[in-house]
Amino acid sequence: MSSWLPVKPLPGLSKREYKDRVGAVRMRLLRLQHDLLQTDTPVLVVFGGVDGGGKHETVNLLNAWLDPRYLSTLAYGEASQEEAERPRMWRFWRDLPVRGRIGLVLSGWYSQPLVEYARHRSDDARFNHQLKQIAQFERMLSDDGALILKFWMHLTARQQHQRLRNLAEDPLTLWQVRPRDWEHLHLYERFVEASQHLLEKTHGKHAQWRVIDGSQEKLRELCVAESLADALEKRLANSVRAATPRFRPSQAKRLAQLDLEQQLDKEEYKTRLAHAQARLLRLQKTAFHCGRSTLLVFEGWDAAGKGGAIRRLIQPLDARQYKLIPIAAPTDEELARHYLWRFWRHLPRAGNLCVFDRSWYGRVLVERIEGFASKTEWVRGYDEINAFEEELTESGIRLLKFWIHISNEEQLARFESRKLDPLK
Amino acid sequence: MSSWLPVKPLPGLSKREYKDRVGAVRMRLLRLQHDLLQTDTPVLVVFGGVDGGGKHETVNLLNAWLDPRYLSTLAYGEASQEEAERPRMWRFWRDLPVRGRIGLVLSGWYSQPLVEYARHRSDDARFNHQLKQIAQFERMLSDDGALILKFWMHLTARQQHQRLRNLAEDPLTLWQVRPRDWEHLHLYERFVEASQHLLEKTHGKHAQWRVIDGSQEKLRELCVAESLADALEKRLANSVRAATPRFRPSQAKRLAQLDLEQQLDKEEYKTRLAHAQARLLRLQKTAFHCGRSTLLVFEGWDAAGKGGAIRRLIQPLDARQYKLIPIAAPTDEELARHYLWRFWRHLPRAGNLCVFDRSWYGRVLVERIEGFASKTEWVRGYDEINAFEEELTESGIRLLKFWIHISNEEQLARFESRKLDPLK
Repeated sequence: MSSWLPVKPLPGLSKREYKDRVGAVRMRLLRLQHDLLQTDTPVLVVFGGVDGGGKHETVNLLNAWLDPRYLSTLAYGEASQEEAERPRMWRFWRDLPVRGRIGLVLSGWYSQPLVEYARHRSDDARFNHQLKQIAQFERMLSDDGALILKFWMHLTARQQHQRLRNLAEDPLTLWQVRPRDWEHLHLYERFVEASQHLLEKTHGKHAQWRVIDGSQEKLRELCVAESLADALEKRLANSVRAATPRFRPSQAKRLAQLDLEQQLDKEEYKTRLAHAQARLLRLQKTAFHCGRSTLLVFEGWDAAGKGGAIRRLIQPLDARQYKLIPIAAPTDEELARHYLWRFWRHLPRAGNLCVFDRSWYGRVLVERIEGFASKTEWVRGYDEINAFEEELTESGIRLLKFWIHISNEEQLARFESRKLDPLK
Repeated sequence: MSSWLPVKPLPGLSKREYKDRVGAVRMRLLRLQHDLLQTDTPVLVVFGGVDGGGKHETVNLLNAWLDPRYLSTLAYGEASQEEAERPRMWRFWRDLPVRGRIGLVLSGWYSQPLVEYARHRSDDARFNHQLKQIAQFERMLSDDGALILKFWMHLTARQQHQRLRNLAEDPLTLWQVRPRDWEHLHLYERFVEASQHLLEKTHGKHAQWRVIDGSQEKLRELCVAESLADALEKRLANSVRAATPRFRPSQAKRLAQLDLEQQLDKEEYKTRLAHAQARLLRLQKTAFHCGRSTLLVFEGWDAAGKGGAIRRLIQPLDARQYKLIPIAAPTDEELARHYLWRFWRHLPRAGNLCVFDRSWYGRVLVERIEGFASKTEWVRGYDEINAFEEELTESGIRLLKFWIHISNEEQLARFESRKLDPLK
């Protein structure tokens, strides 16, 4: 579809017809919401579109029509200081609804990229990159079982102008009109052009856009509610089944190439360690003062010495500015969300260091081996991990990953000696 | 004990003795930490005292000696915007360690009240009130099974001066000296006087202070480590058993006095509801602009109509500025902490409204009836709830609590009619 906007106007409806359809859809939604609770599907309903197109009204109405206990509104303003210190998508990850619940997203991940672009604060390359990242984000959630519905509420320039005037005239709704909205009206053409592009680039099988005529006040809400009910019904009827992907293990043998016979003299070890630790502390202080965050990831065989390496690494550091995150079995709050959620939630504030003792690589290691992740899931995990790490480094976080390797024989010998030492 | 400070100097130790004791205490700590993991006891080790007295060094050393996977450092600087918008104790509640783990608290809840008082930014009444609140906080955690150890690291004025000079001379430690520390040196007498008072007021059976001579650099850390090991050992040996308290139910019969025959004409209901909803929206907007937060609590019998009341209340509101928190069974992350933690974590940012559908009153209602809370726990719950609500209102949050009441007969009738309506 090459042209999304303008959109076909909604057909008229008699008062009677409207009332009947509202009654019917409310009953359906409550029933579907109840059935949804029994499933593993989190639902995201994302609202975008022209200011005054009815995003807020629709969210309010859905809040009134659905059971508010299993529904949350995820609305975003300017990023707070704590939010601004993390990658752009951090606050959206943080708020993801748990399985079986619905989140209504207002001024969400589309908002800032679109406004920045339309106001010439970013360029084509940046806008496209952000859209690609968003598509990836939605893809990850959808692959994980989320149902994502996206509504674009559209108005013509003339309708938008009229709408803003109406809102501004009523003291009860005046607050909805920000000075920025009048500015945006002057940029209408540019907004529409950018929106066309946005819709085009982020309309995927896993997260489709539905463009709604926002000019018909009550009708548009009904239309969204019915679309939501249809989508829920369809999802509840068909449990999703993805084809198992093929997987080609890499032919590189990096571990086998590692020289395991390296030796270090005890005295030299002591000197170099002390020297490195002093450097680390100095660098930690500098990083803190420039607000540069660092993430360290440790993986490796059991008994390879991850714990010892981490202990020596953090020993000289200022304990106020690092956190050690040991990754063990997920909690039930973590299990109720995408598996990356439990790593997003630990991202440090600006200037801090975060050490992961085991990490998201568990997805393609222990979870794969032990069967906690299906083949579909762990194969997909590689792309997801790459996308995640790209977001981290792009936001300015330094990411370093260490694999601590030992030979089979060495591991066995260490297990044997551990048996004798109860403290290990 | 009427005078805490100055403190007895630590006895000298030969290099050999020191080494032996360090070796012994490290082994003990690792073993105890491992045993602690199997228990329901969270441990808080709180550090206070004179700047330069060795708080940071001790925390760093404990981080190196203990197993860092089951240890976290909870260190606090200036409150961030998001923290400043909540009650003073919010960030400490947020970070509480889970059962079986140890948290080292640096610049924690004692820091701000002491500094403010010593610098004449608060008065006796405010300081005393804050200390009382802190004592209450520690009491709650201790009652819930937490082990709280508090160390006060002391230096004489002369020692402090020397210490700051030493730190400032070494480029590796210069960062530890803030301009404020030199100022505080001039206020030494006042700090000591305030500290005496603080120690006096917050030294309880459930959270004792240990005052440590901070002038002997390595010895003081050893001394803290041995105290910690002793306390852990003692706790692990004796499981805590509180006497079951007596409980006198109130004689007031507020529910029985309620007139359950009140009627409202349907037309009048509609008019008044519409009027009230419009007022609510206006007030919500005003509250948001002044940064005034509101908490609403709904309790009452099943089928009393809490859900309906809440739905009508939030229907007109701007969904971006309220959150509905339905309280159901706690998650495992919630179960691993004090029962009030799951309410603290939902406190809204400035200007927002938070509606609790059921609440902390579950402690003295459903948890009491169903036996999830022991008698000791629910009797204690009343004081804890009062202290919690006092903190909320004191921080400027408006707290309103609604009990929705119906008669036995009405409840039965509603249950019967619900049987016929699958949606309810």
